[in-house]
Amino acid sequence: MSHSDATTTVSELRQLIADFVAERDWSQFHSPKNVSMALAIEAAELMEHFQWLTTEASRRIADDRERLAAVGEELADVVGYSFALANELGIDLSSAIRAKMIKNAEKYPADQYRGRFGPEDGG
Amino acid sequence: MSHSDATTTVSELRQLIADFVAERDWSQFHSPKNVSMALAIEAAELMEHFQWLTTEASRRIADDRERLAAVGEELADVVGYSFALANELGIDLSSAIRAKMIKNAEKYPADQYRGRFGPEDGG
Amino acid sequence: MSHSDATTTVSELRQLIADFVAERDWSQFHSPKNVSMALAIEAAELMEHFQWLTTEASRRIADDRERLAAVGEELADVVGYSFALANELGIDLSSAIRAKMIKNAEKYPADQYRGRFGPEDGG
Amino acid sequence: MSHSDATTTVSELRQLIADFVAERDWSQFHSPKNVSMALAIEAAELMEHFQWLTTEASRRIADDRERLAAVGEELADVVGYSFALANELGIDLSSAIRAKMIKNAEKYPADQYRGRFGPEDGG
Repeated sequence: MSHSDATTTVSELRQLIADFVAERDWSQFHSPKNVSMALAIEAAELMEHFQWLTTEASRRIADDRERLAAVGEELADVVGYSFALANELGIDLSSAIRAKMIKNAEKYPADQYRGRFGPEDGG
Repeated sequence: MSHSDATTTVSELRQLIADFVAERDWSQFHSPKNVSMALAIEAAELMEHFQWLTTEASRRIADDRERLAAVGEELADVVGYSFALANELGIDLSSAIRAKMIKNAEKYPADQYRGRFGPEDGG
Repeated sequence: MSHSDATTTVSELRQLIADFVAERDWSQFHSPKNVSMALAIEAAELMEHFQWLTTEASRRIADDRERLAAVGEELADVVGYSFALANELGIDLSSAIRAKMIKNAEKYPADQYRGRFGPEDGG
Repeated sequence: MSHSDATTTVSELRQLIADFVAERDWSQFHSPKNVSMALAIEAAELMEHFQWLTTEASRRIADDRERLAAVGEELADVVGYSFALANELGIDLSSAIRAKMIKNAEKYPADQYRGRFGPEDGG
């Protein structure tokens, strides 16, 4: 429980990644360019689990314990490299995400975009 | 300060994304398949900032206030969709990342991999 | 007609790309690492057209003249960078594709994989 | 020789892919959405070969027979799926590439962009 998302700060997880990199002296390989590639590669490996499924079938992964664990592992890689990049560049993610969500809320006002992405998607 | 990574839990950020999606009734579009695509697309947009730079030059982005902000915004998108996927599938990210880092530590023992990725990269 | 796939060799298209790069002296930026990133970024831009569609709806793009043209343009970018990478590394694509398709045919014998990707997908 | 890029038309390679798909009745899985995902995944696997290399070191892959063959195989997958998508959507690639290169030449006039991507990259 003390290890769940409810009680874990973003910094704690970032530190986990920072320690792992420091213990191996891997910062030399962790240029932002390289880490951005690693991140994109992990995102593709995550996508691989859903590649040939219909959108509906992809929801049922939540009920398949084994595949869900595999997806969780790929997602951990994606977020791990996101934290590694934030570490290398000194970006505060909580601020960045909050700022971006404010921008998104202005771009997609809830009352205009409820149930659709744009005028052309509406009923 | 109360908004920084040091004091923000993963759940707080996940809730931010969950609320945004719920207010727009966008969960219907957020099948794991679709969200994994969105994530990979944002990862590519992040990579775009480093595409034509040398690995060394990519480190200097940290000193360019404007580009750093742009990179931070793309990274926010990547992490935001990661949280959206965790929300749809009910994955606890803190547990998943901790479990994956233990696996990584076993795969890459610090004493064997210090300063290199494999035997062939060593001196 | 003399410009269609039926009468155009792969080399002719590769030369088009090679000339474009040479005229701008861009080979210096076209390291395989950089071109592989450019290729992945274009692949993501292509994917963007299908991101929020169901698999079935994505087929109907073929009937939407305007979107089809936009997709064709992204696909041209993907294949263009593929040719650029083949140019930089001196890879003969026709040989590589023929060799890979022989390997694929051995991995997925037609009589075993008709209508399914694996035993678990079958009826 | 009769199998090289110099003597192979784009249509011949596209037909190779079309036959492979038809023999397995896989067109049902080849919605443009799915194929665009497969393409992006293969592009990421290609990128994996260059992920931790400097841009300069990535050029030396051309001299490493074994890695070059592996890269060629991934590139074959990327181009193979590009052809599969063109087949599903009925896009003539030679026309699309020629049209896009004319557009690119207008966007990046050779005399203005020689040796650089933009004014800010120049000397």
